[in-house]
Amino acid sequence: MINFEFSNVTEIVFGKETQKQVGEKIRKYSDCQKVLIVYGSDRIKKNDLFQTVEESLQKQKIQCYELGGVLPNPRLGLVRQGIELCRKENITFILAVGGGSPIDTAKAIGVGVPYEGDVWDFYSGKAVPKETLKTAAICTIPAAGSEASQSSVITNEDGWFKKGLNLDLIRPVFSIMNPELTYTLPKYQIGCGVVDMMAHIMERYFTNTADVDLTDRLCEAALRSIIINGEKTLLYPDHYAYRAEIVWAGTLAHNGLFNTGREQDWASHKIAQELSGKYDLAHGASLAIVFPNWMKYVYTHDIDRFVQFAVRVWDVDLAFGKKEEIALEGIDRMQKFFQKLGMPLTLKEAEIPADAFEEMADKATNKDTVTLGNFVKLNKKAVMNIYSRCKGK
Amino acid sequence: MINFEFSNVTEIVFGKETQKQVGEKIRKYSDCQKVLIVYGSDRIKKNDLFQTVEESLQKQKIQCYELGGVLPNPRLGLVRQGIELCRKENITFILAVGGGSPIDTAKAIGVGVPYEGDVWDFYSGKAVPKETLKTAAICTIPAAGSEASQSSVITNEDGWFKKGLNLDLIRPVFSIMNPELTYTLPKYQIGCGVVDMMAHIMERYFTNTADVDLTDRLCEAALRSIIINGEKTLLYPDHYAYRAEIVWAGTLAHNGLFNTGREQDWASHKIAQELSGKYDLAHGASLAIVFPNWMKYVYTHDIDRFVQFAVRVWDVDLAFGKKEEIALEGIDRMQKFFQKLGMPLTLKEAEIPADAFEEMADKATNKDTVTLGNFVKLNKKAVMNIYSRCKGK
Repeated sequence: MINFEFSNVTEIVFGKETQKQVGEKIRKYSDCQKVLIVYGSDRIKKNDLFQTVEESLQKQKIQCYELGGVLPNPRLGLVRQGIELCRKENITFILAVGGGSPIDTAKAIGVGVPYEGDVWDFYSGKAVPKETLKTAAICTIPAAGSEASQSSVITNEDGWFKKGLNLDLIRPVFSIMNPELTYTLPKYQIGCGVVDMMAHIMERYFTNTADVDLTDRLCEAALRSIIINGEKTLLYPDHYAYRAEIVWAGTLAHNGLFNTGREQDWASHKIAQELSGKYDLAHGASLAIVFPNWMKYVYTHDIDRFVQFAVRVWDVDLAFGKKEEIALEGIDRMQKFFQKLGMPLTLKEAEIPADAFEEMADKATNKDTVTLGNFVKLNKKAVMNIYSRCKGK
Repeated sequence: MINFEFSNVTEIVFGKETQKQVGEKIRKYSDCQKVLIVYGSDRIKKNDLFQTVEESLQKQKIQCYELGGVLPNPRLGLVRQGIELCRKENITFILAVGGGSPIDTAKAIGVGVPYEGDVWDFYSGKAVPKETLKTAAICTIPAAGSEASQSSVITNEDGWFKKGLNLDLIRPVFSIMNPELTYTLPKYQIGCGVVDMMAHIMERYFTNTADVDLTDRLCEAALRSIIINGEKTLLYPDHYAYRAEIVWAGTLAHNGLFNTGREQDWASHKIAQELSGKYDLAHGASLAIVFPNWMKYVYTHDIDRFVQFAVRVWDVDLAFGKKEEIALEGIDRMQKFFQKLGMPLTLKEAEIPADAFEEMADKATNKDTVTLGNFVKLNKKAVMNIYSRCKGK
């Protein structure tokens, strides 16, 4: 185990009807007069959610401003619009309503408003944010993770660079999570969410840090629960219990607990991000394609860890075969599970051409000047090898 | 799953040499000039710990005051002394150095100083604290749990009442946890700590709340890790990896995560607290005696949960026998494990007489006017039955 610091200040407000508390909760953390509500599609206006939020804020005499139209792989352009709006109207609190994209957008606006330079500086690594407007979230998508995380990922349309910012400062002050708000999501998006939360855990699980028994077991426990409840929640989309497990697992997968004392990897996310950025493929779908192929590329680096993963998470019997067979069987079972969730397993299935591997690998590795990941450090050639494995027949 | 709110603001600073950061960390949270250091025995002065703390505080120009002599089952008398000292010297930050007892004492002093009435009001339920001095901890005992929890338990010498206060307000702002600081602890205290952290998890595990798959699995994962590493850390007291797992597991066992969305029980703790309060028996030893006997009294209430516990935590095979046999085998394996840790399993082994069951049961149930626990609600007669089961032959 390596030394670590861990705190998680985001207050989770979880359960049925909790969206009605949003006004009170904002008031608990801020004496703001104006709130910017950041959201994606008009879905939240077609059901009662938007109205509920407005009513709850009005009770606290808070004026609502809107910034809609956040897209998956949220764009820098809209972040800049949000920053301008906040400055012009003197808005001091940002409420995201939706999934990871509105939340990541809200976080970006939050650090952008008090900053004199361009907000992209924080994502390109040119500057580190010192202050932020307070942000909060009402989650309508399981597995965003962003609702209690220290990260925000934004896509710069000028070159389609997708970059992340990681900092305790940007954790939301609270997040309201009512699993019922996620019932109307299309199955495809639920499937993407389930893969994404599993990937968040696996990026932490595959580590070179020795002596991490407790966090290994916590990761495995969460993965097993996600596997069981992920399948059930697709079959029974309006069953509260299954959905609630998935929604809470999605938060824990990404709030930092599971990586305490461990080096993390995150190569698969970066490789998948280039795919999502270039082809606008949903984040979870990219991960369903990339993660198993990353595994097949790296598993020999620590076969015992892959055996443990296969046995404890995927119930592969220790007598199944040799270590290599056990490890590969675990990966195979994971792919079959992703398939059950309706995910593509290859670029071909996702109707993505095989002609931009070098371009994407160049972007991911900054023209082969940086490596990706920690479990195995991947250079441009390795990343291209993994993209090739993703092709499909 | 039931609705819940969860946040854990205590910053955990975990790992080797972290005690050297104490001054900086206090400065991060407070501009205080004076700190009260609360501790138990002079052990921390015999090694370098006290000196390290003083030096780190001096670098921040912080003046140190001392309140030593905290006993296991920490006493109200010393809390009152601490409150007087803080008021007299205008001390505004309290640092506990030690295990659960100094931390619980620090929390009690923290809420007592700004309160006009008697601090016992908060423990007797007569009043609820509105404010507190900031507190922090340097942990020298694994399994305190108190270092990131919202609870404090104090014993009132006037009648030997042991009572708890539970409130988010009293969580420490940070806790420094260096597993190496626990190496010199006697084996008996390590054993007590391991039982205590397991009990913290089991009080959350045995619930009537349905549909709690994720938190069930997280509890089971932590218990398994504690069982393996608890035994190893007794065998190899200065092996960092085993000790680190136990120290971190002790915090997670009690920080509130494992009970998210679940009703908790806590009858065993209350029954054990009367034993500890009356006979000054270590908390963990009381729990080692009481918890298995509580289980044997209640297991028929939800045999399936006890079967799950036996199978997933204690590796009892599902084909071991009928449900009842499997459940009881799980409890039996737990008792054998407690024995390996050097714990007493009966009152007789702890040299405690069997003549005060009614007195203790009266205290625990406030003369049969309140019941204990939620999994099964226990009246005075039930509590006496459990004490009788604890006797031993």
